[in-house]
Amino acid sequence: MNELNGQWRLAARPVGLPKSSDWEYVEEPVAELADGQFLVALEYLSLDPAMRGWMNEGRSYVPPVGIGEVMRAGGIGRVVESRHPDYAAGERVFGVFGVQRYAISDGGGVTRVDTSLAPAPVHLGVLGMTGLTAYFGLLDIGRPEPGQTVVVSGAAGAVGSVAGQIARIKGCRAIGIAGGPDKCAWLTEELGFDAAIDYKRGDMRAQLREHTPDGVDVYFDNVGGEILDEVLRRLARGARVVLCGAISQYNAEQPPRGPANYMQLLVMRASMTGFLVFDFAKRYPEGVAQLAQWLRAGELRSREDVVSGGLDRFPEVFLMLFRGENTGKLVLKLTGDEG
Amino acid sequence: MNELNGQWRLAARPVGLPKSSDWEYVEEPVAELADGQFLVALEYLSLDPAMRGWMNEGRSYVPPVGIGEVMRAGGIGRVVESRHPDYAAGERVFGVFGVQRYAISDGGGVTRVDTSLAPAPVHLGVLGMTGLTAYFGLLDIGRPEPGQTVVVSGAAGAVGSVAGQIARIKGCRAIGIAGGPDKCAWLTEELGFDAAIDYKRGDMRAQLREHTPDGVDVYFDNVGGEILDEVLRRLARGARVVLCGAISQYNAEQPPRGPANYMQLLVMRASMTGFLVFDFAKRYPEGVAQLAQWLRAGELRSREDVVSGGLDRFPEVFLMLFRGENTGKLVLKLTGDEG
Repeated sequence: MNELNGQWRLAARPVGLPKSSDWEYVEEPVAELADGQFLVALEYLSLDPAMRGWMNEGRSYVPPVGIGEVMRAGGIGRVVESRHPDYAAGERVFGVFGVQRYAISDGGGVTRVDTSLAPAPVHLGVLGMTGLTAYFGLLDIGRPEPGQTVVVSGAAGAVGSVAGQIARIKGCRAIGIAGGPDKCAWLTEELGFDAAIDYKRGDMRAQLREHTPDGVDVYFDNVGGEILDEVLRRLARGARVVLCGAISQYNAEQPPRGPANYMQLLVMRASMTGFLVFDFAKRYPEGVAQLAQWLRAGELRSREDVVSGGLDRFPEVFLMLFRGENTGKLVLKLTGDEG
Repeated sequence: MNELNGQWRLAARPVGLPKSSDWEYVEEPVAELADGQFLVALEYLSLDPAMRGWMNEGRSYVPPVGIGEVMRAGGIGRVVESRHPDYAAGERVFGVFGVQRYAISDGGGVTRVDTSLAPAPVHLGVLGMTGLTAYFGLLDIGRPEPGQTVVVSGAAGAVGSVAGQIARIKGCRAIGIAGGPDKCAWLTEELGFDAAIDYKRGDMRAQLREHTPDGVDVYFDNVGGEILDEVLRRLARGARVVLCGAISQYNAEQPPRGPANYMQLLVMRASMTGFLVFDFAKRYPEGVAQLAQWLRAGELRSREDVVSGGLDRFPEVFLMLFRGENTGKLVLKLTGDEG
């Protein structure tokens, strides 16, 4: 290989929203493969809110990306050269390959992608970590029962849109919180949510009260901040709050805002529980099989917001997540390859 | 009866610490008993942080005390007259009799107090709601396992001092957080806590790190605020935070402070769960029997901070709770009667 690799490396720890000086774009020739390695030409990058957390110092569930290191990201690509016994050129694979054009892998954490089942971007969305996060978070942590009210924030985002649909499939009242009438219409008209709450309308408390007359049994939170505080005021007795994310706080320049109404957990004998999808790794096959079955049956809809333009656009496209500009799973397409 | 009753009634909803104008002292003759009622002459009042919450408007687990109503409180007294078939004059009883000298009861929520087992104030402490709150909160919500690290805040208070001792009895490392060297010495030297952290010393983070080298498996929180935030930083994987109270916030004049580090629940796959002892009512006999057995065996120590001076002193003695001036269970003694 004499290919030139392009990489986005972390140049500085961002304060607030990442800016261009927090990134460094580097080009260098792809290294030679050693035995047991293969080379992946990346086609699609998964852009996720959690990536913002990986850019910070401090204790978290994975070490932070080091300054000067390639930014961490999941992606799908094609094996273009292999000295690994289990992977052959031409195979489509998923892995945490980083924000770059080419990745060298030893197969660790890599899974094959079956594009006969669904186009590649769906494997970053409903059939990937996104769908699995919604699946295990809602069902194992939230434990919704038929007839209960499930509220999902960030409901037009990648994970939220799946979590709400699973709640509906399980016979719950699914209420989504999203920003703007278009997203809200998508939730109710396309995805079958029972109601949508537009937090940008300014009367969230009244909308929430209207749509949760019996309170909230399960709250699947992707956003934190004021929306979390409002939902805490509506918890039903024995409610479960599932902490999946807190995107409203990821770029805070002050210390993050804690939920002032957290003592409603006591009043309502409720719980707030964090989880990470990685802890369910042994059950991924179960999750993917179920999600794929719902997808085939038309019970679950997949939506990917695939942005073209290649690797160059990574820093700006990444910010779409924090500006609420994506609907469904945000994917950056790196090549001209078909889906 | 021609006795004169004395009552402390709620005159106004306090802003911050209750002040004298928030109370009204009223004297009036005791009413005639109807059939099925009995009259209790109160001897001991239980003073609890939760009472502050009952003075506020807003959704909680019990309705607020109304303006003009007798302040709600648990107490122990002697039946002095009875037209109730199950209660006879001379019996000692516990009930939510209110902050007054005499209470008329129909027996609802009333239990008999066996002072041959322990003096009356102990029945407001370890053998009462206080002990049961610690028992069910720690064991059923916290689910500590032998060898795990249990941290208790408000550890020199009524509930905290019992929770920490139960943790020790169950084979856990019990770490108490309290204010000042005297309280800390009491925890380690008298109650057998493995270590005590003095939050007034100003280096709580360092003390906490020193005493929880493997993190915190169970945190039994009575205080909220900054201490909760510090402990969240030390959670071990799969930790359980038990929300029992948030005394640091009960008199806040601004909106309460939420735990800014709550996303450590996600990082550590941990949970934060509220509970109310009332939900365990069916299991009170189990709890009291176990607590009494530990008490008899000398494994559990009881301490009541019994303040004399009678009903007149209620408003000022109540404030001791919020100034951290009590050690163990705060009890106001109303009569000259022996324990």
